[in-house]
Amino acid sequence: MGKRVMIALGGNAIKQPEESGTLEEQMRNVATACGQIAEIARRGYDIVITHGNGPQVGNLAIQQENAQDIVPPQPLVVLGAMTQGQIGYMMQQNLRNLLSDDGWEVVTAVTQVLVDSNDPDFADPHKPVGPFYAEEEAERLRSEKGWTIVKVRPNSDRQWRRVVPSPIPLGIIEGRAIRKMVDSGMIVIASGGGGIPVISNEDGKLEGVDAVIDKDRAGEVLAEDVGANVLLILTDVDSAKLDYGKPDERPIERMTISEARRFSDEGHFLPGSMGPKVEACIKFVEQGGERAIITSLEMAADAMEGRAGTTVVSG
Amino acid sequence: MGKRVMIALGGNAIKQPEESGTLEEQMRNVATACGQIAEIARRGYDIVITHGNGPQVGNLAIQQENAQDIVPPQPLVVLGAMTQGQIGYMMQQNLRNLLSDDGWEVVTAVTQVLVDSNDPDFADPHKPVGPFYAEEEAERLRSEKGWTIVKVRPNSDRQWRRVVPSPIPLGIIEGRAIRKMVDSGMIVIASGGGGIPVISNEDGKLEGVDAVIDKDRAGEVLAEDVGANVLLILTDVDSAKLDYGKPDERPIERMTISEARRFSDEGHFLPGSMGPKVEACIKFVEQGGERAIITSLEMAADAMEGRAGTTVVSG
Repeated sequence: MGKRVMIALGGNAIKQPEESGTLEEQMRNVATACGQIAEIARRGYDIVITHGNGPQVGNLAIQQENAQDIVPPQPLVVLGAMTQGQIGYMMQQNLRNLLSDDGWEVVTAVTQVLVDSNDPDFADPHKPVGPFYAEEEAERLRSEKGWTIVKVRPNSDRQWRRVVPSPIPLGIIEGRAIRKMVDSGMIVIASGGGGIPVISNEDGKLEGVDAVIDKDRAGEVLAEDVGANVLLILTDVDSAKLDYGKPDERPIERMTISEARRFSDEGHFLPGSMGPKVEACIKFVEQGGERAIITSLEMAADAMEGRAGTTVVSG
Repeated sequence: MGKRVMIALGGNAIKQPEESGTLEEQMRNVATACGQIAEIARRGYDIVITHGNGPQVGNLAIQQENAQDIVPPQPLVVLGAMTQGQIGYMMQQNLRNLLSDDGWEVVTAVTQVLVDSNDPDFADPHKPVGPFYAEEEAERLRSEKGWTIVKVRPNSDRQWRRVVPSPIPLGIIEGRAIRKMVDSGMIVIASGGGGIPVISNEDGKLEGVDAVIDKDRAGEVLAEDVGANVLLILTDVDSAKLDYGKPDERPIERMTISEARRFSDEGHFLPGSMGPKVEACIKFVEQGGERAIITSLEMAADAMEGRAGTTVVSG
């Protein structure tokens, strides 16, 4: 059996911040990402892919709201499921077009991710989602839907935004199935947007919750489930940096997990940005993964060969 | 290996016509459908499921339009992909909750279905989709987007509606992968809404098109791909009827494909309704399927045992 890589694509790989999000724009971005992924596939790696969905969920949330008097808005958890279909379709078609001569099968698996209903984040949500609101609208949503809405843009007439929990992923509900799919030779796109968050309710049944799971954390859990050798996290920068943003900023080519922990303690990695990516890498290697890599989309194939990015190894 | 059944669920199995389409309503309907499916699974059948998506796509289309000044509307083909995620999630969670004690894995596979860009329906579209428009709006969409929009409700201030092609499905792009998934023991939800319609373009690449494939036809093609023994089409009536809607209407319990063809020629089955279902049954049995069944959701498990519905067999 070949080596197996779990690839986690950042949201900007699909919709750049300055873009509005037309299908054409997104398809163009997806084509770039899939070019790199196809290159890695041709080198003989089994491939599982996960991706962000922030901009797509944001657009769907705006649409739900604008038509709320005509069509019942679907909750956040369902919007997440929709984007797994949407982004999965775009990637699946692109990859298939790039790889069909090589006989690859590419399938998107709709994926639920288990979280703990007692996760502390449910009591103290802080992940902003969806549109910005004026105060009156914020008040209405707070009382009608029970949403937590906080002031995020002090100097604007639409200062308010919903925040939701970002609980720790405990397990991938479809993890065993996804592993079987990869084992049988498919490229699998799974756990998009960090997965559809579900809790186990009082009756022991799965139940969706409005939350956003960090896609790198969920990707790391999935990487363990599918027995990946490599976790490849693709983001906007070529590598993790020491003294990021300072005059003596310098790239990290390679670090052991104990070095990674020390750099993290020293504050080199921004929380909510490089921080959780480095954490996911540490956890992956700690759990037996060979290596974890952080790099940019453009450098993905090179980084797999150790010629770019930040590689995290044991030690 | 056990017997294998391909189940095609009508749109009303998920959203009843009189409902608005809240998540709660849809989850309740899905629970009923999944109860029947779980019963069939427990009897030892391998199961592949497909489903309609008309009401869900309709709601998404309205939402796209209402927010079009803020968020770029996604085309119909992408809305179809979104509903595969949405409905797949609801069914997957329900089935998992019903069957997790038996160790079943349930996965939704995002599915593209190949159609011919020269299918005559592209020149003469007739499948209505999305919201109703007033004349002015219809004119705008016709010129801006090149949509075909026809008058469908003569006595209304919103008389106009978009029509799209409903081409014949030629193949399931992910068919081989879906077969592997079922072979390895999973319950697979696939080709939702008739599948995401794609053509093979001038460069031989897959490309999405705005169209709606009949879900029973696509389900039949998928049934062949996965090697199903039984095709089970679930709709709003308990069985196909002779002289449907007339005073001497009577149910058909069993018919051979030659009888089915004769009844069809005699006009017993409504085009666009029972007609395509009977056609799908004929094609399935003709291609080697053991039997095809048309019945209502409530009768599904009984019909599998020959105690309800209309069964189509060879001969």
